[in-house]
Amino acid sequence: MKKYVIGVDLGGTNTVFGVVDKEGNIVADASIKTQKYNTAEDFVKAGVECLKPLIERVGGIDTIQGIGIGAPNGNYYNGTIEFAPNLIWGHDGIVPLAKMFSEGLGGIGVKLTNDANAAAMGEMAYGVAQGMKNFIVITLGTGVGSGIVINGQLVYGCDGFAGELGHVVMVPGEEGRTCGCGRRGCLEAYCSATGMVRTAREMLQNSDEKSLLRDKPADQLEALDINIAANKGDRLALEVYERTGKMLGEACSNFTAFSSPEAYIFFGGVCHAGELIMKPIRESYDKNVMNIFKGKAKFLISGLMDKNAAVLGASALGWEV
Amino acid sequence: MKKYVIGVDLGGTNTVFGVVDKEGNIVADASIKTQKYNTAEDFVKAGVECLKPLIERVGGIDTIQGIGIGAPNGNYYNGTIEFAPNLIWGHDGIVPLAKMFSEGLGGIGVKLTNDANAAAMGEMAYGVAQGMKNFIVITLGTGVGSGIVINGQLVYGCDGFAGELGHVVMVPGEEGRTCGCGRRGCLEAYCSATGMVRTAREMLQNSDEKSLLRDKPADQLEALDINIAANKGDRLALEVYERTGKMLGEACSNFTAFSSPEAYIFFGGVCHAGELIMKPIRESYDKNVMNIFKGKAKFLISGLMDKNAAVLGASALGWEV
Repeated sequence: MKKYVIGVDLGGTNTVFGVVDKEGNIVADASIKTQKYNTAEDFVKAGVECLKPLIERVGGIDTIQGIGIGAPNGNYYNGTIEFAPNLIWGHDGIVPLAKMFSEGLGGIGVKLTNDANAAAMGEMAYGVAQGMKNFIVITLGTGVGSGIVINGQLVYGCDGFAGELGHVVMVPGEEGRTCGCGRRGCLEAYCSATGMVRTAREMLQNSDEKSLLRDKPADQLEALDINIAANKGDRLALEVYERTGKMLGEACSNFTAFSSPEAYIFFGGVCHAGELIMKPIRESYDKNVMNIFKGKAKFLISGLMDKNAAVLGASALGWEV
Repeated sequence: MKKYVIGVDLGGTNTVFGVVDKEGNIVADASIKTQKYNTAEDFVKAGVECLKPLIERVGGIDTIQGIGIGAPNGNYYNGTIEFAPNLIWGHDGIVPLAKMFSEGLGGIGVKLTNDANAAAMGEMAYGVAQGMKNFIVITLGTGVGSGIVINGQLVYGCDGFAGELGHVVMVPGEEGRTCGCGRRGCLEAYCSATGMVRTAREMLQNSDEKSLLRDKPADQLEALDINIAANKGDRLALEVYERTGKMLGEACSNFTAFSSPEAYIFFGGVCHAGELIMKPIRESYDKNVMNIFKGKAKFLISGLMDKNAAVLGASALGWEV
């Protein structure tokens, strides 16, 4: 009997379910609206109803090895979502989501982790990290997340929350930007898509330089505008990528002192800029990393960004069950 | 037949050999001068001659499970010492030390790692980290070293050199202190014993505050002087510990975002100051770490510092053979 796993990408807007085979093909998928439900119970009930026909299509529940869920604030050890600020049914408590899905589907094994860790699982199983034992995935989207693999294993730490590299402090002290985590100077406050917009706004305010970015009111500026302007050669927009990449390169040179990975894999919206962001990252890294590490780490862009990577990544957890 | 391992602590001055039993007792030991030899061959020959009577004393080579060596710039994967700046027979090349000792002792298995990793192995086998799966040892001596354990395994990275937390950059840019690694602003430049002396000198120069540290010419000041003065209540010396601990706490709060360890274990000369250094570390950590990690990590001082920990730590590698 051919075996499958189910990957669940639980996002702020949609929750996507995919049935995945050993080769990483999504053979059936469907989705529900994450925030249409007021309680976790209702959300899981809808999810189970959505999954049942998908499972039937590949031959019933006995063909499913296990389920993997990637979710914000997901705790691998407990299978819970804990105080997830952006989920109306999950922001003020601990939701035992893995257990709930398992019970809804006759006791099938369910593993859960956060979205960046799921991305790292996906890269290892189906992406550019195939065969690698030591690498770090850095997700550059609304926030900056990370999934760290050491000795072929995801790093979960003592509590299941390790791998929060978006929240290492890059600008110490009072001059650091405020961050969504309540502290100051975090990498995320500078190098996420929203951090880049903040950088652009600061630069527009502090200079009179001509820029395509002035065509829009500063408070409506989005990361996409910076990308479009930079691709047209706009100097200020290009400088935003330079500064963002410079800090990411500095951050990676510190991460290398920790775990000396063979590759950094970048993932998420900001990476669509390609060399605009990757070149300054590499240059800054080469300039800042300790001599003994120079020339060792590769800097890659995820190969899964267009392939529903979040579902694939989460599904890779299903094989662990 | 009772089994033993041999631990080798290869230091800049002495190389200590110890035969260690399963319970972590050093049942026989001896040492040679590390720098008395002009070539690695002569050093290994002397080491083997030194070891032979120790081995005979416990019943011959068949009772020895393996040998573990802790050495500066030691590479676990290759069993080599690579460009170790402070070894006259090892500073300008790659010395296959594990292989050389193995050949000198009839083919016995030999593993080698750097000194801080050996300390971490020792804590896990015989010290305060017994039973822990995720912890970080930070050595505060002439330099700042680290041994990182994740999922119960030492972190060696892709090249065998991971765990250089003394060289994460804490003060970015040109204002950072120069570091022995050739870069600027590294943790080691501030929080090693020598870094603390630099801090004291700067403070003496930048103020007229009375201090016992002024009894000595500034260029002769040592870390021990700071410790003695602080224990007498000298305000400036106490402030050196405050600043050092503050930066160490900030650094640890970043390390927690990486691997969320259940404990930080401090090791080395600076730790003899006890609460003088540990209190500001804990306070700064609590202030700086992300909310989700608060209250989770323990801050401990090694229990092995008076017990020839380096030999014990290295010997723990011998059981891996």
